Amino acid sequence: MTSTPIADLWPAQSGGADARPEAAYRLLRAAVESFAERGFHATTTRDIATGAGMSPAALYIHYPSKAALLAEISRAGHAATLELVRAAAAGEGDPVARMRHLVEEFTAWHARARTVARVVNYELHALPQDDYAVVAALRLDIEREVAALIEAGLAAGAFAVAEVRTAARAVTSLGIDVSRWYTDRSSETPEELGRRYGELVLRMLGAAL
Amino acid sequence: MTSTPIADLWPAQSGGADARPEAAYRLLRAAVESFAERGFHATTTRDIATGAGMSPAALYIHYPSKAALLAEISRAGHAATLELVRAAAAGEGDPVARMRHLVEEFTAWHARARTVARVVNYELHALPQDDYAVVAALRLDIEREVAALIEAGLAAGAFAVAEVRTAARAVTSLGIDVSRWYTDRSSETPEELGRRYGELVLRMLGAAL
Repeated sequence: MTSTPIADLWPAQSGGADARPEAAYRLLRAAVESFAERGFHATTTRDIATGAGMSPAALYIHYPSKAALLAEISRAGHAATLELVRAAAAGEGDPVARMRHLVEEFTAWHARARTVARVVNYELHALPQDDYAVVAALRLDIEREVAALIEAGLAAGAFAVAEVRTAARAVTSLGIDVSRWYTDRSSETPEELGRRYGELVLRMLGAAL
Repeated sequence: MTSTPIADLWPAQSGGADARPEAAYRLLRAAVESFAERGFHATTTRDIATGAGMSPAALYIHYPSKAALLAEISRAGHAATLELVRAAAAGEGDPVARMRHLVEEFTAWHARARTVARVVNYELHALPQDDYAVVAALRLDIEREVAALIEAGLAAGAFAVAEVRTAARAVTSLGIDVSRWYTDRSSETPEELGRRYGELVLRMLGAAL
């Protein structure tokens, strides 16, 4: 699973004032792998501790439960995606250029970080209620960024869609599903796939290419 | 879970020479619900038997393992989808009309049968190797039907796409992901969503609308 850039989600582990202990980082990584492989419900705290080379007791020093680990993974994964979407939406160029960039980045991220993305998108129902609320708000923000960029393209006469909300949903959905089917054996690199999806999505939104 | 038309997948249970015993049908239904809720790995044969109102021993009369149940669910789900795709691809009209119909049907099916579709698409890795091979062949057939219809549209000058395989993947991916996010609270009916997705996909493929 070297292909998952999980370190990107928790960049503070290597130092700094709010650096996470190395042990917590290992637990997060082991939890992602276990949840992705077996699903949240079939994973035990012992599985995660073992994956991180620790005792179950050592795990509890850092996280009170496997649900707390899932919550942190889910929050970090969604926060990273939102940041990526925001940066692209607020970037340079007209709405067409920005949407192209957004889809390229969003798609490539879901191909590269597919193990994290699967956990983040397919284990939502297992989140405790308060954590779910936090993540649901992040998801709504992602959809809103995409919808706002479609609106901007419509206002500029560059896009033509009947239903902004459905179109925004289709854009994010196409990217998220990449994490389900993309593998090391896929014929396209994450970046190639991103470029092709950028092209397809712009057409879908009615841009003249 | 009244919204899952699971009975459609096993229509023979009500009679006929090759009718499935009612008990087997109840087991399949209970297995779908358990797998969708907890995941394959966290589901026990006891969970499934209990869901079907039976003893674990009674389950083994019909299925040797929970993997055998998953295999049958997965095969039936994929066979149903392939049938739907084939019927639409071989239907009346030009490639644009047939692709519209295909996407409408494929999307609406994944919204309506989302519980089955989730199990079928997200538990593939849990299938025994021989069963996986059967299902992988069905999946390939689905992609080929979609790709062939895109080729037909290209040949007729009705579509314009750079990469047929990537475009075909995007078409099926968009439909499959509906099963992840669609809920009873979604603002569009499965049929409305199908019509909107039909429109979006035709644009994506470069059809002049």
